[in-house]
Amino acid sequence: MDLPTMEDSKIIFALDVYDRDTGIELAKNLADQVFAIKVNWPIILENGIKIISELSKYSKIICDFKLADVENTDKLITEKVAQYGAWGIISHAFTGIKSLRAVVKSAGQMKVFSVVSMSQESYIDNVYDKLVDDSLKAGVFGLVAPANRPDRLKKIRDISGDIKIIAPGVGAQGGNIISAIMAGADYIIIGRSIYDSPDPIGAIKKFNDEATKL
Amino acid sequence: MDLPTMEDSKIIFALDVYDRDTGIELAKNLADQVFAIKVNWPIILENGIKIISELSKYSKIICDFKLADVENTDKLITEKVAQYGAWGIISHAFTGIKSLRAVVKSAGQMKVFSVVSMSQESYIDNVYDKLVDDSLKAGVFGLVAPANRPDRLKKIRDISGDIKIIAPGVGAQGGNIISAIMAGADYIIIGRSIYDSPDPIGAIKKFNDEATKL
Repeated sequence: MDLPTMEDSKIIFALDVYDRDTGIELAKNLADQVFAIKVNWPIILENGIKIISELSKYSKIICDFKLADVENTDKLITEKVAQYGAWGIISHAFTGIKSLRAVVKSAGQMKVFSVVSMSQESYIDNVYDKLVDDSLKAGVFGLVAPANRPDRLKKIRDISGDIKIIAPGVGAQGGNIISAIMAGADYIIIGRSIYDSPDPIGAIKKFNDEATKL
Repeated sequence: MDLPTMEDSKIIFALDVYDRDTGIELAKNLADQVFAIKVNWPIILENGIKIISELSKYSKIICDFKLADVENTDKLITEKVAQYGAWGIISHAFTGIKSLRAVVKSAGQMKVFSVVSMSQESYIDNVYDKLVDDSLKAGVFGLVAPANRPDRLKKIRDISGDIKIIAPGVGAQGGNIISAIMAGADYIIIGRSIYDSPDPIGAIKKFNDEATKL
């Protein structure tokens, strides 16, 4: 791949928009400032999964689909996403190791990240250690843990070895880049504070500066 | 709505296919034998959400999207799905009452069903009572609970009053219609045993007969 992506950026841009043209324009303009771009279901709804191939021309694309279904359904989704050239996919881990293994197996070359704790309180909060354990056993590439809950993030880092951790919750959800990186995040996911900014490139540059100060 | 749907059927058909033409053909042929048709992400991936409007000509459509994200993302997905005429949407409940309330609010006229236990073992198994409680407080229309785990389904029915329960896990996942209905399910979700059958209409009729024997 010969992408404009900035490999040493610690920022993953969360492109949470519906519209194709807005999405492509943002990806094109911001790709060289970020490590990767994360998309969620909103942009798939109106455009279908083919938008992933289009966006992959500009950046590594992580499909944040928060897979949370039984083994067979998670497999059906993952296989199809892999065909369209996504770089990574995000699955929940609470569904258990069978679903996680099905996702890792169907992902092929695509990297699998598993959610071991969310950026809001939820009923998986008390089992984060089991979710980490299952994720490592299933052979995921990385974990998703909350940037806006640095104490929890640190606990997760402490039991996760050197596996990559990507962390949402900075900006609109109140998290802070410095504390998240200090707590053990490798990459920080930021969405609304960038795409809702009157100057998205300026906003990312500011976040990149902040992250590299450490 | 003037749909061919069989209102007194207890079967919800899980249309878990990727392809538009296959999906439309199955919906057209099977709609008059079922209470509703449930679709998951696979059919959306290649076709986009507009397939929901097409399928809604034949049956009430429940979007089994297992929403499992933070409040804002679940809201973005639900609002868009509602615009395309889905009859219902399925959300996880473990994400907490804030996400559930956001889904119910954004759903408008669309019915919200929340998953309080899955058809496979998972890390939300021990909190099903809390998930029921939050679901009732958030004002969902119905619950999703496993047909293939009738003991658990009965426990959920016992604490859920007379709210509708739809239950997956019959057929490929080993559940049985009679025991699921006796345990408290109102509707049984069946997919692979129908669409993988050489005679899908015959398969549904057999399930309908079985369900009405009670």
